[in-house]
Amino acid sequence: MRVYNFSAGPATMPVEVLERAQSELLDWSGSGMSVMEMSHRSKEFVGIAEAAEARLRSLLGVPEDYAVLFLQGGATGQFAAVPLNLAGPGATAAYVSTGAWSRKAISEAEKYLEVRTVADEAPTNYSTVPAEGSLQVPGDAAYLHYTLNETIGGVEFPYVPDAGDVPLVTDASSTILSRPLDVSRYGVIYAGAQKNLGPAGLTLVIVRKDLLDRARQETPAVLDWTAMAGAGSMLNTPPTLAWYLVGLVLEWVEEQGGLPAMAVRNRDKADLLYRAIDGSGFYSSPVEASARSWMNVPFLVPDPALEKPFLEAAAEAGLSGLGGHRSVGGMRASLYNAMPIEGVQALVDLMTDFEKQNG
Amino acid sequence: MRVYNFSAGPATMPVEVLERAQSELLDWSGSGMSVMEMSHRSKEFVGIAEAAEARLRSLLGVPEDYAVLFLQGGATGQFAAVPLNLAGPGATAAYVSTGAWSRKAISEAEKYLEVRTVADEAPTNYSTVPAEGSLQVPGDAAYLHYTLNETIGGVEFPYVPDAGDVPLVTDASSTILSRPLDVSRYGVIYAGAQKNLGPAGLTLVIVRKDLLDRARQETPAVLDWTAMAGAGSMLNTPPTLAWYLVGLVLEWVEEQGGLPAMAVRNRDKADLLYRAIDGSGFYSSPVEASARSWMNVPFLVPDPALEKPFLEAAAEAGLSGLGGHRSVGGMRASLYNAMPIEGVQALVDLMTDFEKQNG
Repeated sequence: MRVYNFSAGPATMPVEVLERAQSELLDWSGSGMSVMEMSHRSKEFVGIAEAAEARLRSLLGVPEDYAVLFLQGGATGQFAAVPLNLAGPGATAAYVSTGAWSRKAISEAEKYLEVRTVADEAPTNYSTVPAEGSLQVPGDAAYLHYTLNETIGGVEFPYVPDAGDVPLVTDASSTILSRPLDVSRYGVIYAGAQKNLGPAGLTLVIVRKDLLDRARQETPAVLDWTAMAGAGSMLNTPPTLAWYLVGLVLEWVEEQGGLPAMAVRNRDKADLLYRAIDGSGFYSSPVEASARSWMNVPFLVPDPALEKPFLEAAAEAGLSGLGGHRSVGGMRASLYNAMPIEGVQALVDLMTDFEKQNG
Repeated sequence: MRVYNFSAGPATMPVEVLERAQSELLDWSGSGMSVMEMSHRSKEFVGIAEAAEARLRSLLGVPEDYAVLFLQGGATGQFAAVPLNLAGPGATAAYVSTGAWSRKAISEAEKYLEVRTVADEAPTNYSTVPAEGSLQVPGDAAYLHYTLNETIGGVEFPYVPDAGDVPLVTDASSTILSRPLDVSRYGVIYAGAQKNLGPAGLTLVIVRKDLLDRARQETPAVLDWTAMAGAGSMLNTPPTLAWYLVGLVLEWVEEQGGLPAMAVRNRDKADLLYRAIDGSGFYSSPVEASARSWMNVPFLVPDPALEKPFLEAAAEAGLSGLGGHRSVGGMRASLYNAMPIEGVQALVDLMTDFEKQNG
């Protein structure tokens, strides 16, 4: 029996995608081999790769003047790639700090340039995002970086920050494909695949082409957007199996009705869970209502001693991956695209039962 | 029907591994989820990861004083990681150039330090390796780097170079696990997985622990061996699906009798093919007998106009991936661990038939 997996990433995949991958695992489309055995230069794999890129472009509405890259190294690799590709030594870049992932991005960027933190939500214990219109971005900043959705803290921007003429860069790992996104507002969007896109081991980078051709000489080739764009992401062997699986996920999203349909579904799932939290008087959310994520929903029980019994009761009910990040504790439910509303309903039912027995 | 896939990487996988992965794809060992859906911090995945490392250590005989890392970015990522982790700016490193992959490693290293090429096989058109004992390694070199097996040229070192006190570093991508290897002779061994280890998207690094703690401050975290060793390769989300598949391949190698058995099998396969080439008077090998690879066997037909008909006849016989690398043309058969001797015999039979009709 498959469980409902609320893990923050790697995360639950659409069962239809897993079934399709399973059926093709020894012989893809009569080729006589698995996708993972194909040369990345073969016409079969090139077709798979190009179809995935075309689907992504169509679903997200990626304009023609953006390159789409399929890389390795995760968002953490891009924490270094962003400054290396966009700014010379001695440059300044503006960062917004809304939690653990922002702070990691900042630490890594500090290896390469001067970071100016233009907003830091530490005073609210990272339960908020800066008010819309409040950011003061220095005109000489190479770019403005923010974390669209904080996977650990469960804080998501409900608006696109205005960076003026400064290129806007975002880590969209745990929100990409969950709802429409106006790509044209951004200079660079990057995302680890292991939430809404597919398995861990593939990193999506969407970069406006006028931002290419400025990488530092010492940028490792595998993190060099310009070199990778010039080679169709095949400067070296790409993670072919992950790329194929991302393609299957994109096909599935398309079949569900694309991003407008995903947005309705994800809003409904998040509403159901937040209503259960707020209506209980037993559970609580550590995040201000205006900044709550649709994708990662942290919540607390009144007494930390109840966390272990809650997680045990959840496991017994076939609900997995509900422990909060080890750095913050508590509970967290990740509601990525592939989590059906039935899973959220099962969680809400469990929460109600648990409250009755422990409230 | 599965074909015999002679692709140089990504490459053929053991069919038993694919069947096992297929059977577990929706539910790993009663966990109710696919391995690719598991949190990398879950006890299930940590168990899978640790078992893979233990198997690798046992198969290769990795001594206790070496760290084993499971990274991303391929060998190309390590072309940058090697100088960044082992040497400061202004340092010198010694490189041996035996073909296309050596030259790529050198180009990337030149971003970070002074490369001294201590042997260059260009005069033989990269058909040789330097004679044993001929290398003069400067005592002040940070390390000596060589390409154990040139995947494109089909040139393999039959001996371990003597670097004296200078740490020896090798790109073992297309030879690792094909026969026993004396790890204790090396400072660092790295390998992309997509030949003998598993699917593309995972990079193995084996590093002697006394070589850690010297990474440059500007090393991207995802390429920082010290940081990765400290985090059990989970500084960020690792490529979990690829790691699991590598574990299945290692289990399969173990069942075949380990590296001594693989060596016998691989020698027999290579002998069969080289005998067919040398005995024909029609086909020829561009590589000197003393430097011929067991893993990648390039060969030529007397007239390049015969290449296309040869590849078409091969495809018709269910033999795939035999075209030479686009940079050199000709034919190439990669005979990794998962290629059965029946596949090589089928190739030899085809070659004999083709010669009869075109010789």
